Amino acid sequence: MKQVIVIRNDLKLGKGKIAVQVAHASLSSAEICKKNHPSIYREWLEEGQKKIVLKIENKEKLLELYERIKEEIPAVLIRDAGMTQVPPGTVTCMGIGPWKDEEIDRYTGELKLL
Amino acid sequence: MKQVIVIRNDLKLGKGKIAVQVAHASLSSAEICKKNHPSIYREWLEEGQKKIVLKIENKEKLLELYERIKEEIPAVLIRDAGMTQVPPGTVTCMGIGPWKDEEIDRYTGELKLL
Repeated sequence: MKQVIVIRNDLKLGKGKIAVQVAHASLSSAEICKKNHPSIYREWLEEGQKKIVLKIENKEKLLELYERIKEEIPAVLIRDAGMTQVPPGTVTCMGIGPWKDEEIDRYTGELKLL
Repeated sequence: MKQVIVIRNDLKLGKGKIAVQVAHASLSSAEICKKNHPSIYREWLEEGQKKIVLKIENKEKLLELYERIKEEIPAVLIRDAGMTQVPPGTVTCMGIGPWKDEEIDRYTGELKLL
């Protein structure tokens, strides 16, 4: 099991801002998984809660990926409150899973590590 | 309510690695809070799960802060599995809370944003 966070690479966020967005996505996606698939969540936690951060070109590609993946795998889009660096409501990233590695890879296999 | 993640600034981690460590700390600390202080956890979530990432000089300062803060506020140290960038078991960061802003600030008020 793993959790994948996909973050927009076009926003040029600072490393602290990136970390907050990724943590937000991680927690939100984990909450959904815990509620709807508790055994997957537990297994992921026990395995050490593996997380991978990938980057994606822009908002359009992120939304397109979200629309495809959410049919099959728990996923959540994160919008920033926009106090700093980006306007309020900006979509910054997506949390996916935790879910089975190979099923996530079918959607994200071509994306590069942040 | 807010959650604070304090990360070592001496490890010179890449931004993806930082994001993973911060997310790990965020989730682990949130789990502890949810279990032991569910009303604080819920309030924090409903307020938008505010998270702040601060930096600290080195491991010694991080451990010293952890020892002081854990007496009063839920906090958790994060060790990296060490597949890349750092040796296995390296302490990378600490998750604090969610907890009351001003009580966390008493411990972390002098640290700078990452």
